[in-house]
Amino acid sequence: MRATVLYGAADVRVENVADAGLIEPTDALVGVRRAAICGSDLWPYNRAGPDDAGRRMGHEAVGVVEAIGAEVRTLSVGDLVIMPFSYSDGTCEFCRQGLQTSCIHGGIFGTIGVDGAQAEAVRVPLADGTLVALPVGEDHALLPSLLTLSDVMATGHHAAVVARVDAGKRVAVVGDGAVGLCGVIASRRLGADQIIILGRHPDRTALARELGATDVVSERGDEAVERVRELTGGFGAHSVLECVGPADAMRTAIDIARPGGAVGRVGVPQDESVPDSVLAYFENVTIGGGLAPVRSYVEELLPDVMEGRIEPGRVFDRVAGLDEVPDGYRAMNDRESIKVIVQP
Amino acid sequence: MRATVLYGAADVRVENVADAGLIEPTDALVGVRRAAICGSDLWPYNRAGPDDAGRRMGHEAVGVVEAIGAEVRTLSVGDLVIMPFSYSDGTCEFCRQGLQTSCIHGGIFGTIGVDGAQAEAVRVPLADGTLVALPVGEDHALLPSLLTLSDVMATGHHAAVVARVDAGKRVAVVGDGAVGLCGVIASRRLGADQIIILGRHPDRTALARELGATDVVSERGDEAVERVRELTGGFGAHSVLECVGPADAMRTAIDIARPGGAVGRVGVPQDESVPDSVLAYFENVTIGGGLAPVRSYVEELLPDVMEGRIEPGRVFDRVAGLDEVPDGYRAMNDRESIKVIVQP
Repeated sequence: MRATVLYGAADVRVENVADAGLIEPTDALVGVRRAAICGSDLWPYNRAGPDDAGRRMGHEAVGVVEAIGAEVRTLSVGDLVIMPFSYSDGTCEFCRQGLQTSCIHGGIFGTIGVDGAQAEAVRVPLADGTLVALPVGEDHALLPSLLTLSDVMATGHHAAVVARVDAGKRVAVVGDGAVGLCGVIASRRLGADQIIILGRHPDRTALARELGATDVVSERGDEAVERVRELTGGFGAHSVLECVGPADAMRTAIDIARPGGAVGRVGVPQDESVPDSVLAYFENVTIGGGLAPVRSYVEELLPDVMEGRIEPGRVFDRVAGLDEVPDGYRAMNDRESIKVIVQP
Repeated sequence: MRATVLYGAADVRVENVADAGLIEPTDALVGVRRAAICGSDLWPYNRAGPDDAGRRMGHEAVGVVEAIGAEVRTLSVGDLVIMPFSYSDGTCEFCRQGLQTSCIHGGIFGTIGVDGAQAEAVRVPLADGTLVALPVGEDHALLPSLLTLSDVMATGHHAAVVARVDAGKRVAVVGDGAVGLCGVIASRRLGADQIIILGRHPDRTALARELGATDVVSERGDEAVERVRELTGGFGAHSVLECVGPADAMRTAIDIARPGGAVGRVGVPQDESVPDSVLAYFENVTIGGGLAPVRSYVEELLPDVMEGRIEPGRVFDRVAGLDEVPDGYRAMNDRESIKVIVQP
């Protein structure tokens, strides 16, 4: 089958690999109908060292169950499913508390030894605990929005939940990438009064406004902090969604939080420490978040997608066939595209 | 009057200063009956540069109202009061939400230009918003425990609240100083199942056991992390109270939290960044806390002190007259004393 493999920085290839198939009796084999390129894929795309073995890429998918192992109980061949970016048994201590990204037996797609979703098919371990069957067929118009529940929309939602977004809150979203845009959708969905997006790409911030942002701050650093203060009555935002990852974005996120506020971070951190510890301490700013436990959010978000109340599929602005995936990486890296949907 | 003044590292003196008195109509003048030396006083005691002007010291007090300004409404001369370590108007946006340490008009006792509590008397700004009148007289046996509500017990409680201590939780407390010991009291009070104290002073950890700790970890660094894992079924603590401040203590706190856990930090940070950002991200560990909004906790904790259900006054192991305060600093700094109560 065809699959996407990263061999080093800017060296991503689509090539023939051994067909995916069942190994464990708890596996499902999923034929990929839609996948995506993630902002987090750009970190290794820019920074990975040379790797002769190659790493399978992609962790977001909607697909059709093509085979199931003997112990799979809740899925049938032919089901259309959402594949969250991490697999999980659904029964361990962490899964039961809704933190499936810390599943004792879990892992992440598109990492060493685990199939990637930018491919024709994926072996899904622990299928019962991982996959969510959908009530629609594979030709459904909502496939792009449903695909976002495998990562980006659920991740924006996680940032909003951790940042304690609620009715009446003033919210700031750091980053105008696909996760930031989904953070805007999530914040509006949770009833925020004000949603400020910090970003410098006019096309993206314009889309953010359509999705619910009330204000745009295109400044950076201290000027951005000043501007958010002005927009929030002088004190900063109750809830800040950090959707980028590097320390300077984290610093901005902490600095624009009001005393007693919360930062929900979902951008993959690029540094070993969180800045502005002393400021956060004196202002009692809480810093939380991390890998989003997508699996625990799918059921909550699904009805809103199915009934059109949220349209996270709008973050996709380019469609790529499997062979066009390398150019999709380039386009996202060059900021030509917000997010690429892959149609194998 | 006599007051404690810090002129530089290890140069703390008790000397004659101008009498404290009313300045604003919202002030109260409080005659100090009990004050304390705080672990946080040891940071400037060890690190302050030479300062000819001197800085008044002390921010914890129980005292008697000796005079009130014309606009003070809720207090009378003769009231015995708890003076939280920070003053606050009680009416601003942050006070109303219970974060009096971020009061728009507030400040902290024993800082530049603000009276210190290790003295015969203190001018208390914004008296109505700051002071809590007590239902007992100044000769009451519970004065030491009541004094802890001005800072140390309320601070331990803040750490526990932010760390989400609750019935059934496994809790770890980093630090066996007075705040850590109060963190143990607070954790037991909130119903924790297991309370592990990390500390290396046998006298203090023995007291911690009497106050409710179920386990003692005297190792440090990676060995401490390993030991806490063993004690918590392999995963770490749900709630971690960081009661020290330096980055290595913070690192331990994050490393011993289980995935999805929370660190409540109240130790004054000694470094500009929080370590182990990447670990905290991948495990969804939340880091919160800071200066404790003591004023918002006094009413909640007071009945438990008055009725003897908690005995935070046990953290005091030495009594000093005002002139003995410098030796009290030395004793605490040399770890001869856990915490010194001052009786002017």
